[in-house]
Amino acid sequence: MPELKLTLLGTGCAGGMPVYGCHCQACVRSRQQTDKQRKQCTALIEAGETRLLLDAGLHDLPARFPPGSLSAILLTHYHVDHVQGLFHWRWGRADKLAVYGPKDSEGCADLLKHPGFFDFNQTLSPFQTITWGDDSNKLSVTPLPLTHSKPVFGYCIENRAGTIAYLTDTIGLPEETRRWLKTKKIDSLILDCTHSPAIKHPRNHNNLDMAIAIHNDLQPDNTILTHISDELDCWLMDNEQGLPNGISVGFDTLKINLK
Amino acid sequence: MPELKLTLLGTGCAGGMPVYGCHCQACVRSRQQTDKQRKQCTALIEAGETRLLLDAGLHDLPARFPPGSLSAILLTHYHVDHVQGLFHWRWGRADKLAVYGPKDSEGCADLLKHPGFFDFNQTLSPFQTITWGDDSNKLSVTPLPLTHSKPVFGYCIENRAGTIAYLTDTIGLPEETRRWLKTKKIDSLILDCTHSPAIKHPRNHNNLDMAIAIHNDLQPDNTILTHISDELDCWLMDNEQGLPNGISVGFDTLKINLK
Repeated sequence: MPELKLTLLGTGCAGGMPVYGCHCQACVRSRQQTDKQRKQCTALIEAGETRLLLDAGLHDLPARFPPGSLSAILLTHYHVDHVQGLFHWRWGRADKLAVYGPKDSEGCADLLKHPGFFDFNQTLSPFQTITWGDDSNKLSVTPLPLTHSKPVFGYCIENRAGTIAYLTDTIGLPEETRRWLKTKKIDSLILDCTHSPAIKHPRNHNNLDMAIAIHNDLQPDNTILTHISDELDCWLMDNEQGLPNGISVGFDTLKINLK
Repeated sequence: MPELKLTLLGTGCAGGMPVYGCHCQACVRSRQQTDKQRKQCTALIEAGETRLLLDAGLHDLPARFPPGSLSAILLTHYHVDHVQGLFHWRWGRADKLAVYGPKDSEGCADLLKHPGFFDFNQTLSPFQTITWGDDSNKLSVTPLPLTHSKPVFGYCIENRAGTIAYLTDTIGLPEETRRWLKTKKIDSLILDCTHSPAIKHPRNHNNLDMAIAIHNDLQPDNTILTHISDELDCWLMDNEQGLPNGISVGFDTLKINLK
């Protein structure tokens, strides 16, 4: 029985939730209710024997993933909130672990210069699918260019159980990515929605209106918002009926399980 | 009554202790005895109302230091293991906090480009003392160039209670720094000693022989070793009598209290 599981380990933006020193109602709530806290965007994909870490924004990744527990790491991009969990982890003593991501000669800090046990040479090409597992349980991952201030890939993750598209960080979608995704029946779309509709002209991330437009365009079975700011969480507290059918807000530990 | 307090919050090298995946006797011990674990090099200086954070290698600094609890941050340099605690913290909502350090146009990742509430413009000049507090309780801090693969300052920290020199990261000492320090009566010297004597030709950090030579040259009342690797901790487990009088190994939470 094929299975495709994606667990959201972090659904916050760069500052996480609560934001240091912030007294907005969402930050105050998340200090009282720890299940409302958000770590930086990170996810785990599991399909049969294959386990892929999708981004590395959490600080405690070494404790979560002992040597041998991951098949590879996929990076959306090299902004620090998506790779900060690699800085200390890289000095571990373990077999080489492949890190797949977009070509970005800058990388982040000295990660590419001093990779430790990570192998950052696995750069991907847009729309060139890579696979893990054997024919009976093959997992396909396709990098999809997104629109951001650094080279970024979203990923379409597919096996016989279904299709998940993970699209962060982005503002809108490049036309080629949009057209590629429209050929797919998407079960779950995990989508960057950093800002509320009150942020009219965001620069690098979707606001809710933009996220809803992408949802309506791609028509997945359901859309789960991620990379959430405290500003959006405040707006959601004030607008409990604010999300259309089929769209929900992600939270850390949320599991999507396709069978 | 003047007082000068320095607390070692982290005494490890870049990978911390235990090292991920490592089965050496020191790493195994530190998994069983958490007081043997080492976080990345960081210290807190306290003198009267003045509280200075010295480097920022810990991930949980936002929880340890609420807004208003620090007078400033001093950085030795911009290697990632000394600044990684700033990446997420910077997005907080708080009054500007001055970060003093050496001039380094690269900084680390995008810290200088996106400083958040930190003010990285407080670059220091070698041997130019800065002070905090009023005349009755003045704390003086003097940046001292060290020898490393990036611009690095050690710091001489003085008030009427005494003198602490904090010298990491370095291999040996530049002659000018050595001469400046030899004019001082140093109570406590906190000194980079990453490697055991078995590492004969280290590149960026002292081995124990080099640290002992600096101790003998500067003749502080006592020397406390920091930036410790698991390789040195293993050597120390095998050589219990291995340290000369006046030299001891630092540990996370160690307090130096001069009165």
